[in-house]
Amino acid sequence: MTNTPKFGRLYGIGVGPGDVDLLTVKAYRLLQNVPVIGVPKRNARAQSYAYSIVKGLTRPNQEILELIFPMTKDVDLLQSHWESAADAIFQRLLLGKDVAFITEGDPFLYSTFTYLFNLFREKYPDVSIDVVPGISSINGAAASAMLPLVYGDRQLAITPATCGIQKLRDTLEGFDTVVLLKVNSVFDDVFELLDELNLVDKSVFVSRCTSPDEMIVHDIRKLRGRKLDYLSLLIIRK
Amino acid sequence: MTNTPKFGRLYGIGVGPGDVDLLTVKAYRLLQNVPVIGVPKRNARAQSYAYSIVKGLTRPNQEILELIFPMTKDVDLLQSHWESAADAIFQRLLLGKDVAFITEGDPFLYSTFTYLFNLFREKYPDVSIDVVPGISSINGAAASAMLPLVYGDRQLAITPATCGIQKLRDTLEGFDTVVLLKVNSVFDDVFELLDELNLVDKSVFVSRCTSPDEMIVHDIRKLRGRKLDYLSLLIIRK
Repeated sequence: MTNTPKFGRLYGIGVGPGDVDLLTVKAYRLLQNVPVIGVPKRNARAQSYAYSIVKGLTRPNQEILELIFPMTKDVDLLQSHWESAADAIFQRLLLGKDVAFITEGDPFLYSTFTYLFNLFREKYPDVSIDVVPGISSINGAAASAMLPLVYGDRQLAITPATCGIQKLRDTLEGFDTVVLLKVNSVFDDVFELLDELNLVDKSVFVSRCTSPDEMIVHDIRKLRGRKLDYLSLLIIRK
Repeated sequence: MTNTPKFGRLYGIGVGPGDVDLLTVKAYRLLQNVPVIGVPKRNARAQSYAYSIVKGLTRPNQEILELIFPMTKDVDLLQSHWESAADAIFQRLLLGKDVAFITEGDPFLYSTFTYLFNLFREKYPDVSIDVVPGISSINGAAASAMLPLVYGDRQLAITPATCGIQKLRDTLEGFDTVVLLKVNSVFDDVFELLDELNLVDKSVFVSRCTSPDEMIVHDIRKLRGRKLDYLSLLIIRK
């Protein structure tokens, strides 16, 4: 038998929508036991929402590895930050340490973890990866706002509100229930479309669901022209 | 101050897709502390999948209240069973006991809890209801099969495979990623459609994800003509 050094394992851990009690038991246990926690941030001074959810669980002997992913559409700049993040994680894995990369919601549903996952599959295919699903803001918001999403043979569409107005219109026309993510930057345009389709009174706005800053707005007319939180969504049920 | 007897609280608890460690901490705690656990079953002799996930957590002094919901499209028959279930739960609430109704996945995403929720809102509007979100089979299957669902501006559709072939075609043509639930009874028809749309090699089948009976099939050609589990889905990513 050779004495090959063994890589640590990379975990992509969904920490849920906001309430630490909505972590899974599996995520909870892993976060208390891994030596390194990878924390995504927009810039060096920013708060990490994912870390704000779990920071009460972490222990002094754990390394909090902050990884910067700027909010930009510049693909080259993004790519270089992803590569740096992957390399920083890989260095810990090489030492045999497990790394848990935390992400709000679920790691495979509109999560930055997906880019990291794809990069590891390409650059470091020998690294073992585990994905721990998390409660998404979609299920969290439905529970907070007491809105059953779909049942029976009904259909659900989930889409960023930034997908383009024609796609949005088709989706709203075709589906029983639609969840629109990232509504903050395009709310007024979305409102106009909902108004035209007679869906304003079938829409509920939820931001930072299940967290102490949760906001639920049933009359979305009130939100026009207002600055909205990045972590906000609309549930539209016909 | 009057001495009004206080109703117990009704909890709709998502117990996740199969692995007990994918319960949320909140669900875990509640299930260990409520006096009554409402358990949905198809008939008196059937196993409850939701209960099979959590039975290791329950304690001898808890009442396991079995509630029968037959697999039928007969609306009157279903309605009478829902009414009986609601009444049985209400009797416990009247005694001041909390009742946790368990449901696999998430309570507001294709769950029988939705019918119970609507019935309570109508018949017993004074009862307080809490909904504890759960990991849906969609997130569970994506994690098990290592398939990122959507990222960036991509769109996700979730639909029962039984929604009708034209709706299915429109959905498959219009979306980047589609999750088809309840594929077991219509698999061969769905396969034909996927074949026609050149999506067979972009489809992965998952049943009973994260449970000891989990099955993941990447070449779905093998499944034609086979009897498939009720708790199965297809993830189709373009």
